[in-house]
Amino acid sequence: MNLDQILNALKDGVKSIEEAKQVILNAQTAEMEDIVVDLHREERCGLPEVVYGRVKTVEQIKDAAKVILEESGRLLITRIDKEKAGALLPELPGCVYCERSKTVCKLPETSLKGKVLVLGAGTSDSAVVEEAAVTCRMFGAETKVIIDVGVAGLNRLLEKSEDLRNADCIIICAGMEGALPSVVGGLVKVPVIAVPVSSGYGTSFGGVSALLGMLNSCASGLTVVNVDNGFGAGYAAGRILLAAESIASK
Amino acid sequence: MNLDQILNALKDGVKSIEEAKQVILNAQTAEMEDIVVDLHREERCGLPEVVYGRVKTVEQIKDAAKVILEESGRLLITRIDKEKAGALLPELPGCVYCERSKTVCKLPETSLKGKVLVLGAGTSDSAVVEEAAVTCRMFGAETKVIIDVGVAGLNRLLEKSEDLRNADCIIICAGMEGALPSVVGGLVKVPVIAVPVSSGYGTSFGGVSALLGMLNSCASGLTVVNVDNGFGAGYAAGRILLAAESIASK
Amino acid sequence: MNLDQILNALKDGVKSIEEAKQVILNAQTAEMEDIVVDLHREERCGLPEVVYGRVKTVEQIKDAAKVILEESGRLLITRIDKEKAGALLPELPGCVYCERSKTVCKLPETSLKGKVLVLGAGTSDSAVVEEAAVTCRMFGAETKVIIDVGVAGLNRLLEKSEDLRNADCIIICAGMEGALPSVVGGLVKVPVIAVPVSSGYGTSFGGVSALLGMLNSCASGLTVVNVDNGFGAGYAAGRILLAAESIASK
Amino acid sequence: MNLDQILNALKDGVKSIEEAKQVILNAQTAEMEDIVVDLHREERCGLPEVVYGRVKTVEQIKDAAKVILEESGRLLITRIDKEKAGALLPELPGCVYCERSKTVCKLPETSLKGKVLVLGAGTSDSAVVEEAAVTCRMFGAETKVIIDVGVAGLNRLLEKSEDLRNADCIIICAGMEGALPSVVGGLVKVPVIAVPVSSGYGTSFGGVSALLGMLNSCASGLTVVNVDNGFGAGYAAGRILLAAESIASK
Amino acid sequence: MNLDQILNALKDGVKSIEEAKQVILNAQTAEMEDIVVDLHREERCGLPEVVYGRVKTVEQIKDAAKVILEESGRLLITRIDKEKAGALLPELPGCVYCERSKTVCKLPETSLKGKVLVLGAGTSDSAVVEEAAVTCRMFGAETKVIIDVGVAGLNRLLEKSEDLRNADCIIICAGMEGALPSVVGGLVKVPVIAVPVSSGYGTSFGGVSALLGMLNSCASGLTVVNVDNGFGAGYAAGRILLAAESIASK
Amino acid sequence: MNLDQILNALKDGVKSIEEAKQVILNAQTAEMEDIVVDLHREERCGLPEVVYGRVKTVEQIKDAAKVILEESGRLLITRIDKEKAGALLPELPGCVYCERSKTVCKLPETSLKGKVLVLGAGTSDSAVVEEAAVTCRMFGAETKVIIDVGVAGLNRLLEKSEDLRNADCIIICAGMEGALPSVVGGLVKVPVIAVPVSSGYGTSFGGVSALLGMLNSCASGLTVVNVDNGFGAGYAAGRILLAAESIASK
Amino acid sequence: MNLDQILNALKDGVKSIEEAKQVILNAQTAEMEDIVVDLHREERCGLPEVVYGRVKTVEQIKDAAKVILEESGRLLITRIDKEKAGALLPELPGCVYCERSKTVCKLPETSLKGKVLVLGAGTSDSAVVEEAAVTCRMFGAETKVIIDVGVAGLNRLLEKSEDLRNADCIIICAGMEGALPSVVGGLVKVPVIAVPVSSGYGTSFGGVSALLGMLNSCASGLTVVNVDNGFGAGYAAGRILLAAESIASK
Amino acid sequence: MNLDQILNALKDGVKSIEEAKQVILNAQTAEMEDIVVDLHREERCGLPEVVYGRVKTVEQIKDAAKVILEESGRLLITRIDKEKAGALLPELPGCVYCERSKTVCKLPETSLKGKVLVLGAGTSDSAVVEEAAVTCRMFGAETKVIIDVGVAGLNRLLEKSEDLRNADCIIICAGMEGALPSVVGGLVKVPVIAVPVSSGYGTSFGGVSALLGMLNSCASGLTVVNVDNGFGAGYAAGRILLAAESIASK
Repeated sequence: MNLDQILNALKDGVKSIEEAKQVILNAQTAEMEDIVVDLHREERCGLPEVVYGRVKTVEQIKDAAKVILEESGRLLITRIDKEKAGALLPELPGCVYCERSKTVCKLPETSLKGKVLVLGAGTSDSAVVEEAAVTCRMFGAETKVIIDVGVAGLNRLLEKSEDLRNADCIIICAGMEGALPSVVGGLVKVPVIAVPVSSGYGTSFGGVSALLGMLNSCASGLTVVNVDNGFGAGYAAGRILLAAESIASK
Repeated sequence: MNLDQILNALKDGVKSIEEAKQVILNAQTAEMEDIVVDLHREERCGLPEVVYGRVKTVEQIKDAAKVILEESGRLLITRIDKEKAGALLPELPGCVYCERSKTVCKLPETSLKGKVLVLGAGTSDSAVVEEAAVTCRMFGAETKVIIDVGVAGLNRLLEKSEDLRNADCIIICAGMEGALPSVVGGLVKVPVIAVPVSSGYGTSFGGVSALLGMLNSCASGLTVVNVDNGFGAGYAAGRILLAAESIASK
Repeated sequence: MNLDQILNALKDGVKSIEEAKQVILNAQTAEMEDIVVDLHREERCGLPEVVYGRVKTVEQIKDAAKVILEESGRLLITRIDKEKAGALLPELPGCVYCERSKTVCKLPETSLKGKVLVLGAGTSDSAVVEEAAVTCRMFGAETKVIIDVGVAGLNRLLEKSEDLRNADCIIICAGMEGALPSVVGGLVKVPVIAVPVSSGYGTSFGGVSALLGMLNSCASGLTVVNVDNGFGAGYAAGRILLAAESIASK
Repeated sequence: MNLDQILNALKDGVKSIEEAKQVILNAQTAEMEDIVVDLHREERCGLPEVVYGRVKTVEQIKDAAKVILEESGRLLITRIDKEKAGALLPELPGCVYCERSKTVCKLPETSLKGKVLVLGAGTSDSAVVEEAAVTCRMFGAETKVIIDVGVAGLNRLLEKSEDLRNADCIIICAGMEGALPSVVGGLVKVPVIAVPVSSGYGTSFGGVSALLGMLNSCASGLTVVNVDNGFGAGYAAGRILLAAESIASK
Repeated sequence: MNLDQILNALKDGVKSIEEAKQVILNAQTAEMEDIVVDLHREERCGLPEVVYGRVKTVEQIKDAAKVILEESGRLLITRIDKEKAGALLPELPGCVYCERSKTVCKLPETSLKGKVLVLGAGTSDSAVVEEAAVTCRMFGAETKVIIDVGVAGLNRLLEKSEDLRNADCIIICAGMEGALPSVVGGLVKVPVIAVPVSSGYGTSFGGVSALLGMLNSCASGLTVVNVDNGFGAGYAAGRILLAAESIASK
Repeated sequence: MNLDQILNALKDGVKSIEEAKQVILNAQTAEMEDIVVDLHREERCGLPEVVYGRVKTVEQIKDAAKVILEESGRLLITRIDKEKAGALLPELPGCVYCERSKTVCKLPETSLKGKVLVLGAGTSDSAVVEEAAVTCRMFGAETKVIIDVGVAGLNRLLEKSEDLRNADCIIICAGMEGALPSVVGGLVKVPVIAVPVSSGYGTSFGGVSALLGMLNSCASGLTVVNVDNGFGAGYAAGRILLAAESIASK
Repeated sequence: MNLDQILNALKDGVKSIEEAKQVILNAQTAEMEDIVVDLHREERCGLPEVVYGRVKTVEQIKDAAKVILEESGRLLITRIDKEKAGALLPELPGCVYCERSKTVCKLPETSLKGKVLVLGAGTSDSAVVEEAAVTCRMFGAETKVIIDVGVAGLNRLLEKSEDLRNADCIIICAGMEGALPSVVGGLVKVPVIAVPVSSGYGTSFGGVSALLGMLNSCASGLTVVNVDNGFGAGYAAGRILLAAESIASK
Repeated sequence: MNLDQILNALKDGVKSIEEAKQVILNAQTAEMEDIVVDLHREERCGLPEVVYGRVKTVEQIKDAAKVILEESGRLLITRIDKEKAGALLPELPGCVYCERSKTVCKLPETSLKGKVLVLGAGTSDSAVVEEAAVTCRMFGAETKVIIDVGVAGLNRLLEKSEDLRNADCIIICAGMEGALPSVVGGLVKVPVIAVPVSSGYGTSFGGVSALLGMLNSCASGLTVVNVDNGFGAGYAAGRILLAAESIASK
């Protein structure tokens, strides 16, 4: 119910002043112990509120997840370990756990036009790669994953040139010096979202060196998310496909 | 001329082995003193090579710019001061200088579907805002600029909610704590590209605090570029509109 | 006994030179093994010495706590785990343990005029929020807690606008980009004390990004304390209410 | 005009739907070239919008300042050099320039109960000290300044103990190791706001070492603002006195 | 045997060329598996080589310790845990283990003129304080320890002014903001060696904030050692007393 | 098969267009679950692909190792713990495990001309030293190891001057301040590769201080690798000996 | 007049209560515009207050310097440029300016037993070396300076071994990796005070790399001062000689 | 004259004890005002002492340069601006100034076997590239320079594959993310020395991001030098060619 509708309802006597005031001031949220679920998130941002599982108790996650599932029909819980997931799944019908990405999800039935390619420079990037991929799929996007194509052996990447050409949006997860996005960014014209990964040691500084490499890329128009934030990269890809859908519909 | 064509030409005797080898090994570039212009950049990445003007001499810029103008018909030179621009413009027909964004450009005649909104949190973000905007326009995108709507007075932002709703892609330039993208990111579903700005003093650390704020945003799916990199943000927006066009055409 | 009184007592022969010297040079402290309890702290700073429990043994804490309880009637021990607290409580009559804030306390019976509101941006800020709240209550302040109203869903905050209006002092605990204090600071005229929280990952750098966001806030007149320092924020609020009381009494 | 009034006006036919919508959506702001003056700032936060002069042109400052002066009757422009101020003053009746604090201001005629003491550890802190003091005075606070009482000669501080006792709020500006707030914080019960100053060399890191010292102070309940942010400290003191006034009035 | 003696021995035929060469090139060291004990260390630097126990095996420590004990008569092993020490002590006659400082030592029988005072700002500094004290005692210095006299309660320090006056060298261990050395440094004329301690949390950065505070102290002529390096501070004090002895003997 | 050969084969009808295209586009790699083994690495870079064992499962390592062993005859797995190695060795004939360097290797039968000397400043550098040495030996280089010759006792180093003179390439592993490469670099004319080691505490910052010392060395022409990267240093030495062989053969 | 004397004077009626109170509370300081000269500094710390010239006006320096000269007979002003010094010298009889160390000083007539050696690793350390030397001389210490004996050519240092042997205290100024103190610290038993110098480029980080090298030195018992703080090092040496004098006199 | 010779000369009476002692203790250096030229540098390290011109006066440089030219016949002065060079050249026969690399040099007449390739990723790397090249040439190495072949347009690099194949040692200078060495390192087996360049802005942090990228490269066996240290890279290449010559001669 938007502002026009509310004010019309007031004018028409359908709503009292008090009722109108409540609707305007109080957006629909569901308050629980230490959690306030934002029920308008899906409408505003494209995906229902995603539950960050790491610091929450099973009880807190369950309460929030049930409300979200009920309101939206799809659900994503991130950074949740196997044990907590095991306790939750019986309560969340239709949801599955992915150990590699540490997510519980129920994907949507509808799909969004456009293909996302998620690349991982090395074997140790696979958890972040999968978190990105599952988030893309939450938007209904067709998503392909390719791992271990870092720049130390350019041939491995160049063999995948057809996949690069077919993608409408590319997410690239890389640790160490994070050079893969620079190379790919120079080869394609679609959006490239770079995800620094906290693998590595010494001066990799938990992914900060990869982050800096990506921020300073000589390839133009790359964008970057927080270290290990596969979720954020997948969400950004989802926003891009939503925009494409909206532009196409104009 | 793609690989299939080259190999067919060889098989058919249209090209000799040496000729085929040259075409495969040597992509088309234009070599000058200390500069190698990448003539395939537009085809691969969507925009002809952009000249970063700060460290180049007038002579170097002129040589590169002329080749690009000739090959592509559009041109962007960034980070170029008024004096250098004054020396260049007579040599570059159809180009104009923008002092605020420190760019020389010749915009394309064609346009790309989709609207970009570029927000600046404060008055001191305007140079970065304009660099982003001109880059978007280089892609042919319709681009609107709004400045001084930071979160210390939320009302200023909320007055612009119609602009937020109409945009297909939003670029947000902000210094200090860089909180504006978090607030906007929670209000829209289109891509939000955050640009930290190096204004501020003390612990703003030349834009690093804003960058960190943006990378750690509690709003999902924001992406970030280097400090003051309005150009990169505009380019990322261009990549998004190109992807949208490509998706729509499938 | 202040300096005037001491010198008068000396002049009047009530105290000898040696006695006066002792009183002047030696403030009243209680010395124990590795601990010197500052018995004048309450008179000087408003609260009896607070025991930082993390690095002390049960024995050390107990000795200090007993002296303080006896001298003051109220007691606060911070950063104390459940096990140590279990060993201590039988020795400290009238004290209770709060697991969430990891504190042992005995609150005062008197109260101080003024209301403190303690906000937590997300669920993971609750330990810091509670440490701040219990410290406020140690000063006798009426204290209200609200959690999970971060800026990614502004509606959640705006629903609480009445609480914002009613508060005389607001403490805001937030991790990630720490943007909540900027938004609240632009909405109210009372003191806003920002507490960065060490939740988050990657470039949150254990709360440093939130700290930087708060220090560089575009909202005027915010003040900041150390990362996770709910205690310090509560103490600062207490100082404010003490000052208000003192000003009112003039 | 608050929400109740607007909705009543609509219901009573005094306002049309369009009029009501405008009032709700559009808070009162004054838009200029690259600047949007927030006319509700004084009502919400206690002081009219303060103009940060460093990056703005004389023209931009003048336009904003005139609107503010007219609406509020008091005015503060910070970080403005002598030359710009000279160009502005003829246009701003009743305003004066202070070279040391680099401010233009017109103080209010009313006063606020409560005394603020602003301390500077060394001679080189005086610019920051004065910026803090003028900001306090903008709130109508009685404000006293004392400079060069750093901890290397404790006697200098202890001689000022009467000033310490009389203050209702203390702002302390210090560079180098920033130890003065720790010492003062252990001597008083009123709010202590610490301002790190960027004087010093080598590992003072432009005030960061002083900032870290203040954040980690062993004195309880200190709060801190950004490096050199005398303005922020003065504003925080103003918020405290406003809260005291509000508490006293309950 | 110094160079003069060696060359004379060669000239006089007491040593052959090969022998002289060996003596010149090969200083006296004891080589073991992965360890080369520097047998000239005591003569050159005042103390026999000190064994850093943390990363060495019991076997490695034992071999080195025995050689040192035999050559010198005194021994210091630092950073050694209780378990390793338990395995070693039966092999090292006359040595004792101190759990608090994590050292095994055999003190010298001779003493050095001059008194060292070791201060700890808080209870959590005691391990570093004791490491410093035992190192001083290895030089034969009379050493006194006082703990929990931080600046938040200046009275605690001022009560110890007689100890301050009596010391010939003062070592001060402090975490958090590390302000105690600044205050003491302004009160005495003897050498003050500051040791930052890694206690604290948040922006204490494992002692770096204390280190920065000490390096930037406004008290003149303080010197600083690495974080938690009680050993280094004790050694520096030993060097000072050795220099005093040498100066007195001239 | 190089490009000339492929194109000739095509021209001669030995290969079809499709076959030629495959060979050009697809370099020879072996794809497995999450791993793509680069089979051309040895030919391009001198050593078959080295398996970084830390983040891979036993199964992943085994699959990659078998392919490499078969193709090359030599094998190096780094950062692999004893347990994983135990599970792998039965599957990898001719391979041995070295616990100190945490490597599994099968050395080559051929040797490369030139001697490498690997120095460790202290006992705690031995793991890095050994990783460097085994990597050198993988190239067939004669390699000598000397440990505990840090600059605090220069005599220990000077005793080894003959080893310094005999080396064709010197790798130096050092933690703490990392000064040993500066001293050695001033004594020899062969390549000196410095490896910072993460031993130490406090401001050693996990080897970063040693790294900075090495990068800023006053000795000319030192080069540096990542912290603890013994493997990288050994590989760099191998590249040097390969270049020497190639130069000699011209 | 110490406390005993004051209290006796009070008891005997020589002083009134008010007079005694003044003397106790108010140590003798000289207050000026923005400067409070600490007249007890020499008695407490060994040197009259030293004037840090960089941020003070000629007028401020002159006022302070005159008071100090009059009270003490010796004077040191540091970080003062040639122009300011030129304006000051006519007002300060007996003072001289040293351009290299940027100091104005009047040395004492008395001397202190003990020799200080000040080493500079390279030519670019000379300003810091000279600041250290003049500060030592302010204490009356015999002081020798040697420059350009860095570790890249160990022979240069070893040629000066007699100077090393003769010194009672050694100050070492070094930029880049700051390795010289480690080498010297392993050769002598007297106090070694290391001063990092801000020469160098790239990762020298304005002297921070040298500082870290010195803090992590493998030579035991070195102490360190702030970057470029020759003054602090000289003061520390002065404190050491004062302690030696005091020990000798017991 | 080596140690054997000196001792023989002593034994044979050719040298007295005093003479032998002088020769052993005092290596041949030339002492000047603030400079000590190390005359043995060429013999020990392969190149005569190189004069770092930035912080030295014309007079200091001239004195040192003349001694070096006379002893060695070749000379390199780095970081010297045009003005100083103009004053020096008349005094240094046979020397030339290169403005781009800011060097004065006299190259050797002899040459060293082996080819060095110096790559610059972008136009702004040319000063560092040239400094590296001139240093290589000082060793007598054949040196080729190629600029502007960064990874954003891989084709530019791949066109130069013949140059890559022909090189015996490759130096790569790159700013921004510094990815070029990773790509090249995966294509060749000769030594690759990476030089981070301080071009770029924002989070390039004056070359530190490029440095981190190079240290964390996924290509094996790269080595790195300080930011902008073209000289160091050239010197390292020289050391490699010297080692190759020495190996070949065995």
